Amino acid sequence: MQPAQLLEQLLERLHRGDSRSVARAISLVEDQTELGPAIMQGLDQQRLDTALTVGITGPPGAGKSTLTSALVHHLREQGLRVGIIAVDPSSSLTQGALLGDRIRMMDHALDRDVVVRSMATRGRLGGVCASAGAAMRIMAASGCRIILIETVGIGQSEMDIASLADITLLVLAPGFGDDIQAMKAGILEVVDLLVINKADMPGSRKLLLDLGRETANSDRVLETVASERQGTETLLERILAFETELRQEEEFKQRRQRSLNKETVDWSIELIRARLTDLVDNEFLTGLDQDPRAAAEQVLSDVLRNSLTFQR
Amino acid sequence: MQPAQLLEQLLERLHRGDSRSVARAISLVEDQTELGPAIMQGLDQQRLDTALTVGITGPPGAGKSTLTSALVHHLREQGLRVGIIAVDPSSSLTQGALLGDRIRMMDHALDRDVVVRSMATRGRLGGVCASAGAAMRIMAASGCRIILIETVGIGQSEMDIASLADITLLVLAPGFGDDIQAMKAGILEVVDLLVINKADMPGSRKLLLDLGRETANSDRVLETVASERQGTETLLERILAFETELRQEEEFKQRRQRSLNKETVDWSIELIRARLTDLVDNEFLTGLDQDPRAAAEQVLSDVLRNSLTFQR
Repeated sequence: MQPAQLLEQLLERLHRGDSRSVARAISLVEDQTELGPAIMQGLDQQRLDTALTVGITGPPGAGKSTLTSALVHHLREQGLRVGIIAVDPSSSLTQGALLGDRIRMMDHALDRDVVVRSMATRGRLGGVCASAGAAMRIMAASGCRIILIETVGIGQSEMDIASLADITLLVLAPGFGDDIQAMKAGILEVVDLLVINKADMPGSRKLLLDLGRETANSDRVLETVASERQGTETLLERILAFETELRQEEEFKQRRQRSLNKETVDWSIELIRARLTDLVDNEFLTGLDQDPRAAAEQVLSDVLRNSLTFQR
Repeated sequence: MQPAQLLEQLLERLHRGDSRSVARAISLVEDQTELGPAIMQGLDQQRLDTALTVGITGPPGAGKSTLTSALVHHLREQGLRVGIIAVDPSSSLTQGALLGDRIRMMDHALDRDVVVRSMATRGRLGGVCASAGAAMRIMAASGCRIILIETVGIGQSEMDIASLADITLLVLAPGFGDDIQAMKAGILEVVDLLVINKADMPGSRKLLLDLGRETANSDRVLETVASERQGTETLLERILAFETELRQEEEFKQRRQRSLNKETVDWSIELIRARLTDLVDNEFLTGLDQDPRAAAEQVLSDVLRNSLTFQR
C-alpha cells in the first residue's frame, strides 16, 4: 500500500475508535517515522478541543492505579470513552512499564473503549513529554472524552509530565512519612486537586493537618478509599466541574498553549539531541576541550555554523 | 577586585581545600557565570585524575544516607578528604534539597574535610548531570580523594546521574515489595556493586533470591547494616579494590571518557534550551504550527538558519 493510502486508512480507523490503529499511530509518531507529522495534522481538531486531559501523580503506594481504575469505572458507567497514558519512570531497571500493565489487568482489559498506553522515560523526560502529548491528542481524536496521564513520583519530572494535562491531581495516602511531611504547604499552588486516598487508614487527618491549615480547609482537597470506590464518584464530579469552570475562563486556552509551548521545546531538544550525541561521540572526540561546558560550546558553534537542516 | 585576581584567589583557596571557595566555585559554574569556564580550566588536572567518584543510588528508605555517612566515617578515619554530592529529585515540592541536609546533620557537620553539595533536578536531568560533573571535578581539585554522588530513586534518571561516576553502587533493603521484586536479574549489568542494607531485617535472604541466582552468588553483592556500621568497612575496601582493578585496565579511562561525552551533550542541550524556550514563548508564538513536532522543526530550522552564536 502507498503511504498516502496507508495514512488515510489509519486516520479513518483511528477516528472510528479502533484501538489497534490508535496504538499504531502513537508508535509511528513516537518512533519519529515519516508518517508521524501527517498523522498529527490529520487529527480531528474538534475532538482535541472537546477532550479533557487529567494528570495524576503521587508517590508509589498511594493507590494511583486503583484510583485511576475507579475513575475509569465511573466514566464508563456514563458511556464515555477513556484513554490512559501510564508513564513509568522506573522502567529501565524493571524491564518494562509495569504501571500500564497493572491498570490494564485490573478491570478494563476487554473494554474497547478504554485505551491504555504505557511509556518509559528512558532517562529522557523531554522525550516522554513529547510522546505523551502526541498520545493524548491521538487518543482524543479517537473519541476519548477524558484522557488520564498517570506518573509515579512526586518530583519535578513527574509534575512536568502531569502538567501537560489540563487538570492536575496529586494523590497522597497516610503513613508515607518523611517524603510527604516535607512537602508542607505550597501543594495547592502546584496541583488543582489533592486526593487523600486510603482515607480509612489511621493518620489520614494527621496527614491533612501536616500539609497545612490552608490545605486542610480547602475544597480542592478530597478524601477517597479508591479500593472501595468511596469518594471516587465525587472526585470525578469535582474534576468535571473544574473543567467547566476553566472552560468558562481564558484559563483553559492558556493552559493548552503553555503545554503546547513546552512540548515544542521538548521536541526541539529531542530532534537536536541525536545529532549532538553523534557529533560528540564520533567526529569531535579528539579535538574537544576536556571541560564539557567548553566542549559543548565548540560542538554547538559547529552545529550552528554548518546550518544543518532538520527535515522531516 | 578584577575578575582575573578574583579568579586567581578563588582557585588558590580552592586548591588549599577551603570549603567556602569550593561552594562558591560550584555556584559560579552552575549559574553559568563568565568565570565558570576559567575556573574549570584552572583546576589541578592531576588531582582530577587521582580522585575516585562513586555513584550511590537506590529507592527511598533503603538507607543511602546512613550508608553514605558510614562510608564517610571510614574514609575520614584513614585521613582522606571526602566530597558528597546529593541529588534530590523531589525537591521541587519539598522546597529544597533534603538529602544533603540529612547527610550534613548526621555526623560531619563540623568536619572541614567533608564537603557537601545538594542539587535539585528542577525537572531538568541534563542540567543536574552537567552541574554534578563540574562539582565532582571542583571537589576533586580541592583535594577530595573520594567523591560520593547520591541520588534517590531506581529509575533511569537516577542511574544516569550515578553513572557519571567511576563506580556505581545500588543500595536496596528488604521489604520493599513490588518495586524491587520487579527488577529481577540484570541489576549487576547496570551497577558495579549491589549493597543489601538493613541485612539484619527479615527478608534479606529472600530479597537476594528474588533478585536471581546470579545476583545471590556474586561477589559484587555485599550485605550491610549501615546504622551499626556493620559491613561498611568491607564495602569501602571492596570499592577501593575495584578502583585498583579498573585503573589497571583501560576501563577506567574509557568510563571517564564516556562520562565526559555525556556531560558534553547535556551541556550542549542546557546551552541551547534557554534560547529555544525564549523563541517558542515569544517571537514564534503566533506563527508556529499547532503540532509541537512540526513547530519544533520550524523553530530549529530558524535557529540554525540564523547561525546564532553561543559564546561564553
